[in-house]
Amino acid sequence: MKWISDSEILIVGLGLMGGSYARALKRLGYRVSAVSRSRSTIDYALAEGLIDAGATEPDAALIGGADAVIFALYPGVLLDWLRDNQQLLKPGALLTDVTGVKGSIVYDIQAMLRPDLEFIASHPMAGREVYGVRNSDERIFHGANFLITPTPRNSPEAVAWCAGLGRLLGCRKVSVLSPEEHDEMIGFVSQLTHCIAVALMTCNDNPELVNYTGDSFRDLTRIARINDEMWSELFLRNKDALLREMDAFADQFRALRAMIAADDREGLREKMRLSTSRRALFDRNKKGT
Amino acid sequence: MKWISDSEILIVGLGLMGGSYARALKRLGYRVSAVSRSRSTIDYALAEGLIDAGATEPDAALIGGADAVIFALYPGVLLDWLRDNQQLLKPGALLTDVTGVKGSIVYDIQAMLRPDLEFIASHPMAGREVYGVRNSDERIFHGANFLITPTPRNSPEAVAWCAGLGRLLGCRKVSVLSPEEHDEMIGFVSQLTHCIAVALMTCNDNPELVNYTGDSFRDLTRIARINDEMWSELFLRNKDALLREMDAFADQFRALRAMIAADDREGLREKMRLSTSRRALFDRNKKGT
Repeated sequence: MKWISDSEILIVGLGLMGGSYARALKRLGYRVSAVSRSRSTIDYALAEGLIDAGATEPDAALIGGADAVIFALYPGVLLDWLRDNQQLLKPGALLTDVTGVKGSIVYDIQAMLRPDLEFIASHPMAGREVYGVRNSDERIFHGANFLITPTPRNSPEAVAWCAGLGRLLGCRKVSVLSPEEHDEMIGFVSQLTHCIAVALMTCNDNPELVNYTGDSFRDLTRIARINDEMWSELFLRNKDALLREMDAFADQFRALRAMIAADDREGLREKMRLSTSRRALFDRNKKGT
Repeated sequence: MKWISDSEILIVGLGLMGGSYARALKRLGYRVSAVSRSRSTIDYALAEGLIDAGATEPDAALIGGADAVIFALYPGVLLDWLRDNQQLLKPGALLTDVTGVKGSIVYDIQAMLRPDLEFIASHPMAGREVYGVRNSDERIFHGANFLITPTPRNSPEAVAWCAGLGRLLGCRKVSVLSPEEHDEMIGFVSQLTHCIAVALMTCNDNPELVNYTGDSFRDLTRIARINDEMWSELFLRNKDALLREMDAFADQFRALRAMIAADDREGLREKMRLSTSRRALFDRNKKGT
């Protein structure tokens, strides 16, 4: 399918991410339907005009009518849903997801999928520290990076379709990389950063801190408000890559500690200059970091 | 002195912080003068109306006319300046600073200071990752925490005067704590966070990262653009406290790593829940973190 205006898009899982997809696609004129286990979520989304139709159970007509499906579920739930319900999907439908890990799900999904369906994995690098459809906001995609992780089973058409989705959402940059490259990179930029925030937030229990802090502590711990169900699953599904990235970070941290202990001011300044020059690349590429 | 409108305030060091003090105090109607080694800084500040008078050398008339002095210098430079120029200060003048470490300077300053002068140390928890008077902005104080660190040599009147300064700047909360408490706390909320940002920014040299990152990596590395001259001095002047805080963080980080390696999902979730509840305190106390 192309991104033509009479496409019907189904969103499975209508939380913060699913809801944000619904808002963006609905505003662009697509017909959007959704499946969510929560009645109040579906009612809210219908009342607010985020979706045209919704169901709390896998509804054969709703699911069978969709030309494209976006899965916004936790990884394990996504695997279960497809195993149980793929027989309801329209022949030729294109499927994608939003999942933060790839290697541990994409091959399993493609291996079990009906041959007349295609699953092309993607991951919008966007989110918020709040949950649920009521907090969904299509602006989370604006300026975000959008990653597509095809395997040898994917067609160029599906990759192109998925890239179109990223651009429709308003992402600044669409990149294509392998599931393995994705997981290594995500272990660094996303999972390691969440580990650091959690460790930082739990290593000091001074209740007065809130009256003493500046912006740097707030920035580093914003993501310490963390969905424990989702992130524990993401961490463990990407364990090997995450442990490698944690060790690389711990090495650098230890090196800094040794310089401070040894009063090595020149060594510290050199590290800080390297850090400054690397960080500057990010400012040039993104407005208002 | 009280914060009465005919007070004359001298700012020594007219960078980002000194310039921001000048803007705030000038707008409030005080007469503000400044000493900076840079001619272009003084010219800019005069042209923009940030100050009423300025000098690039310690000018006896300018310095002797000030009822209050705010030192916005690096710690070592501050100690040198006072040693060389305190004879020029007006008898009874109140002195304060903006320095990010306290124990390693405040006792030395008070020990060498003329008995008719009083130095009351303070630290506004505000800043930006840019430098110089041209980037100064009085809004950095709005909503910030303001810390005062008296010693037994300080008078209650000087503490009250300094608290008035914090409130005039628009800080949300003025706290009084000992230099030692300050340094321990700053080792955690400020210096440790900068160490983490530098280690994170230097532990991976993938040039493609900028196309893959989300907001969490950007947030954690914003402060990885770091003034190496200033921060290396701050780290080494607070070495013992900083090393303790680094070790406490490294312990938590190692504990998380062990849980991930052992597939201890329940342990991870418990840590994440603790982290979430602690971070929530910060959101309740500050608008728009």
